[in-house]
Amino acid sequence: MVRTVRIVGSGLIGTSIALGLRPHSITSQMIDLDPARERLAQDLVGQAHKGPSELVILALPTHAIASVIEAEFALNPHSIFMDVGSVKYEPLQHIIESSLPLERFVATHPMAGREIGGAQAARADLFATRTWIIAPGAQTSQEAISVVTDVIEALSAHCVVMEAGEHDRAVAAISHLPQILSSLLAGSLHDLPSQWLELSGAGLRDTTRIAASDPGLWSQIIYSNRENLKGILDSMQSSLHDLTDSLDDPAQIAEFIEAGRKGRARIPGKHGGKAREYSYLPIVIDDRPGQLAAIFNECATIGVNIEDLSIEHSPGQLSALITLSLSSSDAQLISNHLLSIGWNVHPVLK
Amino acid sequence: MVRTVRIVGSGLIGTSIALGLRPHSITSQMIDLDPARERLAQDLVGQAHKGPSELVILALPTHAIASVIEAEFALNPHSIFMDVGSVKYEPLQHIIESSLPLERFVATHPMAGREIGGAQAARADLFATRTWIIAPGAQTSQEAISVVTDVIEALSAHCVVMEAGEHDRAVAAISHLPQILSSLLAGSLHDLPSQWLELSGAGLRDTTRIAASDPGLWSQIIYSNRENLKGILDSMQSSLHDLTDSLDDPAQIAEFIEAGRKGRARIPGKHGGKAREYSYLPIVIDDRPGQLAAIFNECATIGVNIEDLSIEHSPGQLSALITLSLSSSDAQLISNHLLSIGWNVHPVLK
Repeated sequence: MVRTVRIVGSGLIGTSIALGLRPHSITSQMIDLDPARERLAQDLVGQAHKGPSELVILALPTHAIASVIEAEFALNPHSIFMDVGSVKYEPLQHIIESSLPLERFVATHPMAGREIGGAQAARADLFATRTWIIAPGAQTSQEAISVVTDVIEALSAHCVVMEAGEHDRAVAAISHLPQILSSLLAGSLHDLPSQWLELSGAGLRDTTRIAASDPGLWSQIIYSNRENLKGILDSMQSSLHDLTDSLDDPAQIAEFIEAGRKGRARIPGKHGGKAREYSYLPIVIDDRPGQLAAIFNECATIGVNIEDLSIEHSPGQLSALITLSLSSSDAQLISNHLLSIGWNVHPVLK
Repeated sequence: MVRTVRIVGSGLIGTSIALGLRPHSITSQMIDLDPARERLAQDLVGQAHKGPSELVILALPTHAIASVIEAEFALNPHSIFMDVGSVKYEPLQHIIESSLPLERFVATHPMAGREIGGAQAARADLFATRTWIIAPGAQTSQEAISVVTDVIEALSAHCVVMEAGEHDRAVAAISHLPQILSSLLAGSLHDLPSQWLELSGAGLRDTTRIAASDPGLWSQIIYSNRENLKGILDSMQSSLHDLTDSLDDPAQIAEFIEAGRKGRARIPGKHGGKAREYSYLPIVIDDRPGQLAAIFNECATIGVNIEDLSIEHSPGQLSALITLSLSSSDAQLISNHLLSIGWNVHPVLK
């Protein structure tokens, strides 16, 4: 395990890495273009070592790698380097065009929450239980991969190896496209009368939740992965076009909705593996403190595990509908139990 | 208040109406094309009256209204009629082309959950706290509106008046478009490698949740509202085209994401009114029964109200991230409290 790390970029990700490595007696030099950010981050993570570091972590927007790589290589001529960007092909190009030998670079991508920003939001356990993709190139040395894997595992993250180009195609499809379609939908709400928006249900709220994401961050991610996104967006346009052309034929519309249903069923459920079929238990509650706690207590009492939960409020009303996602047997157990003690439980849905 | 109702269509909506009216001493004749469904529904709602009914509720797919309206009018020549379909312009056309005098028809749309199906899933309180749109025409009589309003209020729903054409444009934008984009996105997952889907996060799950909806039901809804959807889908295609053309310009991509953020902010929060700004409190928990209950207990103990909640599981891990949506002051209160008793609470996000 390395003992000294240099982290270039003192935002949420970089600072969280340094905080997480500290209990392992690894010291970090925090670096940032902005001296105030750098000072804050270094204060948070404790005193740095002097001189070169064994590992340099490029924790900055991928397009900024080109502007720092030569200076960093000059300062740390024997170090291993890794990045943590949301796309993997572009940073690799920056490295290929630099003096850094390719065997010493490992491209990586921690799948950690992004709504948070800045060193002040950093946490030592930000990566705990998260997937962290490593995308080593053909020339990357085993030593470099081993150093980076140790660091990722020290942060309690879960390593998954994927080729850089494949990584970028994967996140285009499962992360960048959902962001674009959510933003597209949310953008279309802009000129609607308020009275229409008053009719919004859980469907609109779910589908537009990620549209609240940071435009600065997301424009860079989408820009960096534009080559993969072009084809996907063309295909979305063409599917929309086909649907528009088939609006006069209910059978073709049904096929379109059915294709979505099949695709949705492929998303893995909790703990990976195949998507699990949950049962859904709707309960109408008074919308005041203690109601949810009481239900969760009952679940705990009879040993029922809640897999997921949604809360829906009706405009102008003081009650709420909560829907618990449960295994089929648990749903039946807790439904009978709650009914027997007077809760307003609706029939279990599959 | 009417005393006798005839409900044509013995599915979830029709049977729930009958169940909800029963405590008000209103009897219902349940009707269905399928004799088994009709019998089940009638058994559930109790004995029917004989002869004509004061109110006829058309609780069947809107395209099916044309096939029943003449016979129903002949059987109930002095009744008031209402429908409960998801679109309002098309049923109105069926009525205009029928012998039923327009003054006796009220178009309505209860905004009630749709994943449930069939009489066996019906509940007397299905409409409690829900919005129920009524879309009377220029010729609809005050008496008809008053009868229908009384029935809706007896079901504990909340009446909102909207013109039929406006209703259809509104639901096209806030309900049918989200369904189409969610199905479009989910459909694109169909051919992806499983390993890619293993990387799915909460964003993909949220945006595709409603893609699991019933194809038969939704193809009819979309078909019935196709005139309004054509223009919206054209505009979506053109926005996607513009975005594709601007992928080389991060500033234009940022504008696109920002437009979505502004649109999203217009969706009203809990209890109507403007979208509320919540604070978000992330907590890492062990993924076993009792953990959520314990947190909700603590919230109840110090009088903190949870506005919403999400649960995110990492593949292959036995811990989960829950995020509570709270008012800013409540978030601070419960965060301090949970930290003081040893929970793994992360900093509050705005």
